[in-house]
Amino acid sequence: MIVSNQRWRVAAMPSEHLETSHFELESVDLSEVPDGHIRCRVLWISIDAAQRAWFQGVAYRSTLQVGDTMPAFAIGQVVESRSKDFAVGDFVTGHLGWQDYAVVDADDLHPFVPTRKLSYYLSVLGITGLTAYFGLLAVGEAKPGDTVVVSGAAGATGTLVGQIAKLHGCRVIGICGSKEKQEWLTSELGFDAAVNYRDDDFRKSLKEACPDGIDVFFDNVGGTTLDNALSVMANGGRVVCCGVVSQYDTTNPARGARGVPGILIGKSLTMSGFLYTDFADRNDEAYHALQGWLDDGSLTVTEDILEGLEKAPEGLIGVLNGTNVGKRMIHVADPV
Amino acid sequence: MIVSNQRWRVAAMPSEHLETSHFELESVDLSEVPDGHIRCRVLWISIDAAQRAWFQGVAYRSTLQVGDTMPAFAIGQVVESRSKDFAVGDFVTGHLGWQDYAVVDADDLHPFVPTRKLSYYLSVLGITGLTAYFGLLAVGEAKPGDTVVVSGAAGATGTLVGQIAKLHGCRVIGICGSKEKQEWLTSELGFDAAVNYRDDDFRKSLKEACPDGIDVFFDNVGGTTLDNALSVMANGGRVVCCGVVSQYDTTNPARGARGVPGILIGKSLTMSGFLYTDFADRNDEAYHALQGWLDDGSLTVTEDILEGLEKAPEGLIGVLNGTNVGKRMIHVADPV
Repeated sequence: MIVSNQRWRVAAMPSEHLETSHFELESVDLSEVPDGHIRCRVLWISIDAAQRAWFQGVAYRSTLQVGDTMPAFAIGQVVESRSKDFAVGDFVTGHLGWQDYAVVDADDLHPFVPTRKLSYYLSVLGITGLTAYFGLLAVGEAKPGDTVVVSGAAGATGTLVGQIAKLHGCRVIGICGSKEKQEWLTSELGFDAAVNYRDDDFRKSLKEACPDGIDVFFDNVGGTTLDNALSVMANGGRVVCCGVVSQYDTTNPARGARGVPGILIGKSLTMSGFLYTDFADRNDEAYHALQGWLDDGSLTVTEDILEGLEKAPEGLIGVLNGTNVGKRMIHVADPV
Repeated sequence: MIVSNQRWRVAAMPSEHLETSHFELESVDLSEVPDGHIRCRVLWISIDAAQRAWFQGVAYRSTLQVGDTMPAFAIGQVVESRSKDFAVGDFVTGHLGWQDYAVVDADDLHPFVPTRKLSYYLSVLGITGLTAYFGLLAVGEAKPGDTVVVSGAAGATGTLVGQIAKLHGCRVIGICGSKEKQEWLTSELGFDAAVNYRDDDFRKSLKEACPDGIDVFFDNVGGTTLDNALSVMANGGRVVCCGVVSQYDTTNPARGARGVPGILIGKSLTMSGFLYTDFADRNDEAYHALQGWLDDGSLTVTEDILEGLEKAPEGLIGVLNGTNVGKRMIHVADPV
């Protein structure tokens, strides 16, 4: 019988770069499950750069505090239920956190019946897939023939955005941070070109890769990458603001994208932020499309898996430094 | 018989604030009219803050140089025609510049038959009216019940945006730079409220005037006004980027709107730049609506007229400092 829970708590607030010392692992007795709540065994934890932003404060959730169990989206399996809506053994997704067992309000859990690989429900069939799909097609309105540029191209969302754009007949250029990733994006994922934001002549390379300008820029990173991309946008182009990874691991984020709003006026550009939940009424459409591409082999899913709950802090720090390729997850336990 | 033309040329490039010494008035012999060209008597000159930006360089036109005749949109009347498309006496609009007579390629002129007050074809029935109409309704997608905030509210575009928003059932708050303008916007133009960006508690006042947040921010000024408005936007709000007046009269424009792109993601905001020409296929719709509101008295047109070509430089400097109320124009001559 299970009697204790291991969990990662916030030990100190980061002042600049996140370090493993900002977290502490503790073992506590299992708490009671209140009425209407569920205890889940955590199976897979999603590691996302945005988790660093939760220390800075973001509009859609409360700022992290010392002592908080580190929150994270995850896949779990019900081990104890005090809700009529869930039975032991059910699979769920929700904000379960960096821990072995989570007690969560049943209203905050989403049940699912896995018909594909379990980890896919955190990546291509989870928030990452919906974010890539809606960001590119609903927000960015990518059309056949468009030049689509994606930053963080070798990351969880970027790998999917680039492939979906290719499936829609776009010309796709990835922005990434190493020569190895550049080669991988073009040779393995079918990107038309890839440029390295760490190169001295990054802006020139981006411009050469986009001779007619960028129609859709799907931006996961912000900072100088965004500044440079804005200068290469085509008239009437759309900038999809999905993430700002370059500004998360600091207490002094950049002042704001260079030349905004003037550059938007001069070239009739649109910049749009979004959350995947903005398009919840189109989830069925997105799942149908993503599952179809999975099943016919036209979408390659790249997973970057670390084994064991103890790897969570270093896993997140790695994502902030771009060490991952594809969707980083922590494998905590196998289902029963 | 006319033999000479007076024109304002650029005498020096401004390094910081624009001054009258940056222009010189000269008298030159009339030039020949080449085949396919037209000589126009300039009647009304539009004075727009954007003319200062033309010294900085903007994407949609070449940067001004010392010696250039100062360009400006204007109303003219044909005095000599070497094009079959125009006859002496025809009225035209086009980029005629700060001068008495302009020789222009016929392809660059737009003929019109005035059925309302001539100056209206520079304001409500000209670029200003189209910009207000398309910016608010096509770009900003203002709907009944929306909270609409407009900066530069007492200016040429702002006065029209606010009134059109009221006609569409929106709640309208104007941002301006004096107590007199605040009172005028609410008492004369029907704005629901007006706040002064020069007040110490500007952000607080703006927030109080928009308890549910801003749905559409029509921005003519940029800078700290934009920064503050972004912090008061409602989820899913739209920022219409029309002008950046606060950043024109300087050689060191602000780094970029604060918090962009992060704030766009957190609140699912869209920022869109545009030019009125983006919606040229809807001009008839816009003219029809604007003329209808003019004719039934539901739109008040505010004109700020200076007499005589010699007033052009001080007229532009005044617009940059917000001394105008409504559309500033130079009245150069009456039609024949």
